[in-house]
Amino acid sequence: MIHKKSANSIIVASIVGLLFSIFALPSVFSKEYFTIKNGELVRPSGYREWIYVGAPLTPHDKNNGKANFPEFHSVYIDPESWEHWKKTGEFRDGTTLIKEMNLVGSTSAPSGEGYFMGRFVGLEATIKSKREFPNEPDNWAYFSFTVPPEHKSLKQTTKAEPTANCSACHEKSAKHDFVFTQYYPILEAAKADPHKAVGGVW
Amino acid sequence: MIHKKSANSIIVASIVGLLFSIFALPSVFSKEYFTIKNGELVRPSGYREWIYVGAPLTPHDKNNGKANFPEFHSVYIDPESWEHWKKTGEFRDGTTLIKEMNLVGSTSAPSGEGYFMGRFVGLEATIKSKREFPNEPDNWAYFSFTVPPEHKSLKQTTKAEPTANCSACHEKSAKHDFVFTQYYPILEAAKADPHKAVGGVW
Repeated sequence: MIHKKSANSIIVASIVGLLFSIFALPSVFSKEYFTIKNGELVRPSGYREWIYVGAPLTPHDKNNGKANFPEFHSVYIDPESWEHWKKTGEFRDGTTLIKEMNLVGSTSAPSGEGYFMGRFVGLEATIKSKREFPNEPDNWAYFSFTVPPEHKSLKQTTKAEPTANCSACHEKSAKHDFVFTQYYPILEAAKADPHKAVGGVW
Repeated sequence: MIHKKSANSIIVASIVGLLFSIFALPSVFSKEYFTIKNGELVRPSGYREWIYVGAPLTPHDKNNGKANFPEFHSVYIDPESWEHWKKTGEFRDGTTLIKEMNLVGSTSAPSGEGYFMGRFVGLEATIKSKREFPNEPDNWAYFSFTVPPEHKSLKQTTKAEPTANCSACHEKSAKHDFVFTQYYPILEAAKADPHKAVGGVW
């Protein structure tokens, strides 16, 4: 027979234990922000609530009407990899980067002539994972969910791009571990510097 | 005298109560992401970990070398106002929007000719608060921490801009409650639609 006093103590201990588990778990097990299913990447969601790192633009009118990437590219990093980048200046195993693409919409506004985001037209991902991509250069793989030529929907799942399609250019020209950090001042500011990472500090 | 059994019950009840408070509080008290001190806005920090909504660009080369806003404008909304926007399609009292400005840096990359972000050159904020700005149109006030002409530092605190400097243009041309949502497809997608808000769903 368990005394009531003991029973209450067990309840208290259980609650304290549960609390401890809830707050301690994330630092013990790294969370991944991607899912591979039957060899394909499942289209990610929730990335607009991750960390934005920049938005390069190489519009048609700067590339004789034939830009390879004519859209705005809004780029995000998953929150746990951001924390790791802030602390260490390295992309952790499991890093997920998302590139969401918007057509150039309006080219004129009260603020001036230029480029304003139009409709969504594509979604790409880059993931570093030794477990999933042991044979890719530095374990980075590249994915596209974009459906040309209409760009009116996205694939549900997608295979990794052939290595030659993306990796060679990233390997040759990207500043840090296959990522073009040189075009992302937010990543440059945040590199191993949690103080500068969050903004408002120069 | 309190019996041990009662004492233990009180401990259990307290822990349960504390747990409840921790998780219930955010929905009871709205959090604000700005601080007004001696009539000036304190320079915000942490906004790069808020929600990114878009990055318009009106570069010099599209405005005869004399653009009013020649930089990339990365725009963020505070997390609680984002939640409110997703649920209601309205900007809550207390909404804080941040505009961080980067010079155009490189104009050529392996991906093509265009515009890539360079160094940070400015920081602005727009805040809607009936308590703080009862006399501003729809309670929106506009702030700049930018220090021209060098753009090498930011002000620590800053006064609201005179109403005529910003508000008139926002009132006339912004699509929704003084905000130019027409140039921010992320806001348009998220308007009262939590499902589409997070991305990956068209």
